[in-house]
Amino acid sequence: MSLLVVGSVAIDSVETPFGKREAVLGGSATYFSISASFFTNVKLVAVIGRDFPKKYILQLEARGISLDGLEVSKGKTFRWKGKYEHDLNKANTIYTKLNVFKDFSPKIPYAYKKTPYLFLANIDPELQLNVLKNVDSPRLVACDSMNFWIANKLNALKKLLKNVDVFIINDSEARLLSRESNLLKASRYIFSLGPKRLIIKRGDSGAIFIKNDGSFFNSPAYLMENIKDPTGAGDSFAGGFIGYLSKTNELSDKAMKQAVIYGTIMASFCVQDFGPGRLIGLRPSDIEKRVRDYKDCICF
Amino acid sequence: MSLLVVGSVAIDSVETPFGKREAVLGGSATYFSISASFFTNVKLVAVIGRDFPKKYILQLEARGISLDGLEVSKGKTFRWKGKYEHDLNKANTIYTKLNVFKDFSPKIPYAYKKTPYLFLANIDPELQLNVLKNVDSPRLVACDSMNFWIANKLNALKKLLKNVDVFIINDSEARLLSRESNLLKASRYIFSLGPKRLIIKRGDSGAIFIKNDGSFFNSPAYLMENIKDPTGAGDSFAGGFIGYLSKTNELSDKAMKQAVIYGTIMASFCVQDFGPGRLIGLRPSDIEKRVRDYKDCICF
Repeated sequence: MSLLVVGSVAIDSVETPFGKREAVLGGSATYFSISASFFTNVKLVAVIGRDFPKKYILQLEARGISLDGLEVSKGKTFRWKGKYEHDLNKANTIYTKLNVFKDFSPKIPYAYKKTPYLFLANIDPELQLNVLKNVDSPRLVACDSMNFWIANKLNALKKLLKNVDVFIINDSEARLLSRESNLLKASRYIFSLGPKRLIIKRGDSGAIFIKNDGSFFNSPAYLMENIKDPTGAGDSFAGGFIGYLSKTNELSDKAMKQAVIYGTIMASFCVQDFGPGRLIGLRPSDIEKRVRDYKDCICF
Repeated sequence: MSLLVVGSVAIDSVETPFGKREAVLGGSATYFSISASFFTNVKLVAVIGRDFPKKYILQLEARGISLDGLEVSKGKTFRWKGKYEHDLNKANTIYTKLNVFKDFSPKIPYAYKKTPYLFLANIDPELQLNVLKNVDSPRLVACDSMNFWIANKLNALKKLLKNVDVFIINDSEARLLSRESNLLKASRYIFSLGPKRLIIKRGDSGAIFIKNDGSFFNSPAYLMENIKDPTGAGDSFAGGFIGYLSKTNELSDKAMKQAVIYGTIMASFCVQDFGPGRLIGLRPSDIEKRVRDYKDCICF
């Protein structure tokens, strides 16, 4: 099967306790696409400016990602600069320059409209709703959001969630949206808004997959020494998760569990280098090996 | 096999967002003993004052815990009062009244000296060292500690760790002791001090068991809605862990993994009520059922 993602492509500058990098490839749709490209055909809808480096286009193409929906607009690419202290779960934004992303209005190429798997990365929920209107009933719709939209565009977000199968958010966002500190209680509120499945990302504590019957699956993060930059971990998780579902084209509980594991593993690769450096260099055998190692560290 | 624990027995007053309780049974050795009593014969060495309620003695006896080492001293029992806000991982101490615990000098009854499993709960490392001198080469020695001793009695703690098989501490304590934020790097430093196994407790993120060859086993906390009071969760974990090892008298990697699971499950029961209320009312079948449920939520 194939997978459509709509979100941001950016140029990031990042500092962590383990180094700093200027102008690396960034953006939610970027991390998602690269991660998912190890499992399925990915079609990317996003906007970049005319300053966007050719080498990054080549990197995305080398991963087989379809870029027919990557609009090049007059102006500069979305830029983000952030810094992490020793708590890598918390990014401190130094600046966000939306640039061409400010007027982003996703255009879905005709050939993309029947894509069976859809991921709406973290953008304005009104734009996410617009995308939904412009695709032909995908088999699975998943989306991300963030505290800014929960605080400022709650009605649009709620309208969106009525039409979403899997909602993927951070623990703090789940708490903000539901006003519940317990994550299972939070999930019950979120299910009342529409989604049938919820993934709560918990940074270096991993992710929890919850079904609307209250059952859940807990996937702790893969423990590692060599962590360099957590940027993009959540989108890499989503890319592994939905990428795997799109590959198998199976939506059973068992397939979802397995997909969560691939999400966790792709996030673990993401954080091992700045930008998507480690993800881009992966071989499929690296992924399978780490899934086996992970199983040994978790199952009993 | 049987198991000796040396630590505190206390009377706690606790407030959480889910209620408050005055003068409940508390203390590290209490939670540990009750938890371990579901697996093995437990011998408790601690001190209480003459004000200690008879009903709590009866509760410990009803769990089959041997109290020959429970010294009754002139004065009042150790009392702690704490409050938790919505982040249940962080206790705010309102007061600590050491009372008879201030002059506690553990006396090991002669009949206890050959106990094969030993847990040194969180007390002054000099006292923990004294206990070690007064037992006959136990098969397994495990201990806990805390930030106060790391900051104030580091030499005694390091001396102790040379003679300990399994060190069980919180993530923040592991970081404080090692000056490393990454937990695997922290573990390498701690192994250089002597222990061959390390358990890092991470509150509602669960626990990690690490071997001195760098291999590890990750046990996320069992996700629940009805959490009331996190007091004693870490000691209940340790009780389940060492209790299980003492029961099986096996120290293989496989047994240790299984023991970690029992630790996680006992901690999950602990937090479901104030004080050890839920632990005391457990049936062995409740424990086995939850181990099975947990497996479904973790393994893939």
